[in-house]
Amino acid sequence: MALRGGLPTENGFVGVEGVRLVEEALRSGCRIQAVLFSESGERHHERLSSFINRPEMAFPVLRTTDRLFEGLADTEHPQGVAALAHPRETSFDDLVRAPASACAPLLLVLAGVQDPGNVGTILRTAAAFGATGAATAASGISGTANPFSPKALRASAGAALHLPILAGISLAILLTQLRVAAVRTLASSVHEPRDGEQPLLAPWEVDWCQPVALLVGNEGAGLPEEIERGADARIRIPMTAGVESLNAAAAAAVVFYEAARQRNSAPASGIQPSAASQSSKTDTLRSPKKT
Amino acid sequence: MALRGGLPTENGFVGVEGVRLVEEALRSGCRIQAVLFSESGERHHERLSSFINRPEMAFPVLRTTDRLFEGLADTEHPQGVAALAHPRETSFDDLVRAPASACAPLLLVLAGVQDPGNVGTILRTAAAFGATGAATAASGISGTANPFSPKALRASAGAALHLPILAGISLAILLTQLRVAAVRTLASSVHEPRDGEQPLLAPWEVDWCQPVALLVGNEGAGLPEEIERGADARIRIPMTAGVESLNAAAAAAVVFYEAARQRNSAPASGIQPSAASQSSKTDTLRSPKKT
Repeated sequence: MALRGGLPTENGFVGVEGVRLVEEALRSGCRIQAVLFSESGERHHERLSSFINRPEMAFPVLRTTDRLFEGLADTEHPQGVAALAHPRETSFDDLVRAPASACAPLLLVLAGVQDPGNVGTILRTAAAFGATGAATAASGISGTANPFSPKALRASAGAALHLPILAGISLAILLTQLRVAAVRTLASSVHEPRDGEQPLLAPWEVDWCQPVALLVGNEGAGLPEEIERGADARIRIPMTAGVESLNAAAAAAVVFYEAARQRNSAPASGIQPSAASQSSKTDTLRSPKKT
Repeated sequence: MALRGGLPTENGFVGVEGVRLVEEALRSGCRIQAVLFSESGERHHERLSSFINRPEMAFPVLRTTDRLFEGLADTEHPQGVAALAHPRETSFDDLVRAPASACAPLLLVLAGVQDPGNVGTILRTAAAFGATGAATAASGISGTANPFSPKALRASAGAALHLPILAGISLAILLTQLRVAAVRTLASSVHEPRDGEQPLLAPWEVDWCQPVALLVGNEGAGLPEEIERGADARIRIPMTAGVESLNAAAAAAVVFYEAARQRNSAPASGIQPSAASQSSKTDTLRSPKKT
């Protein structure tokens, strides 16, 4: 059992460390190979016992010394609790099948996000605003940090274990599959449009109630230009004080907020946000102003 | 001339360090007391010369040694360029007078934001989404980091010099003034509503085209409870995965994005976003889908 480095074991399990993440792993329904407590981590046993003691949770609970645990741990001041968890197995078909809670798939595709902390934070934000799944590109200039590395897992606050994620896929194949599945691809843009190209859209000019996948590129360079130009639409958050005013995580928050806004405003049945329903909802809630 | 610590000089000038910030200070129209170059900072002189050489810029340009500059500087690897700039003098009346570019004042009130980096980032984000002014509370539990400290100025990327800011005001007096001026106060909420209280609103349920002031509280504790309950409305960003999924800067980005969205969708003349105009704009721009 090695947690350090965040590489999955041969059978696909990843190390998950710290009380909160282990709790999320147990809660997520991931397969668990083992849970490990150090001597001083034993004090967290009670918080986790309601999960560990369930009859369907048939995994060994191991004990070790603090010293041995510190040797395995990825963090500097480990809490003494870890687990080997198997991220949800997800197929492309799972990704494009919208769960009952959502009107249509809302996917996140990370293509070139290099910082594991950013990968985790963006996954967490996307999940918080109702994303239904994610994919990360494998290699080349679109290569993205492993979403199951310790740093990404921590930054995701466990969202990487809850959200269906296709990790390390070929971007070219994924884009073709999305096209066949009629999922609209939206590129977060950092490039100016050339003459005759489609204009960049503000997030509010896009219909987020359709099946959509948001492509997010490298922190500095953005998406590879041909990927961006091949997307169904290109979006940019309009700002008065020039570009680069938002970091990758804040930009993702804004865009997924817009998706959540439209999906929450849409009638329960529908795909399209109706102007009428939005306006009536707003009127009801623009509640009595105190004076 | 002392840059370290970020305290204004007796006559209200603050130290501004680094090429980009000095450029912003010169561009902002702030009063400048002096510009200082170290020997190695001299290489940045050309970039700034178009501002320095303007006839209306009547301030001394001083030279110093690298060693002396390092003693004055607040950063570890100073670029060798600094200025003493006077932040825009702003009155309450300036704040509530909407500039020609905006339909109505859109104000940011920071009450308890303790990290200077957060203060700067939130100011920058607010300015990027069209905020027309800001105020920071002086002391007590609502005390907010000085927006003109070196760290806040850097994080604001100069927005603290461009935006009209009332720094270090009494929150109680400000809230009374806002009420008299018919500026609606919106509290970013972290507290649950009590029985019989108004429900928390999603950002999209608020009319941002009116004169509004967004109150942002402490990173952990939020706004003082009585301030939050006294606001005209309380808003919270709805998220599926529980609270605390966004940091202060990302939350501010989402909320000011919503204000920008509504203000951009509103007819040029108007105060109220019309559902009809929103829908027609969306239809026009929900442009041809590539297939």
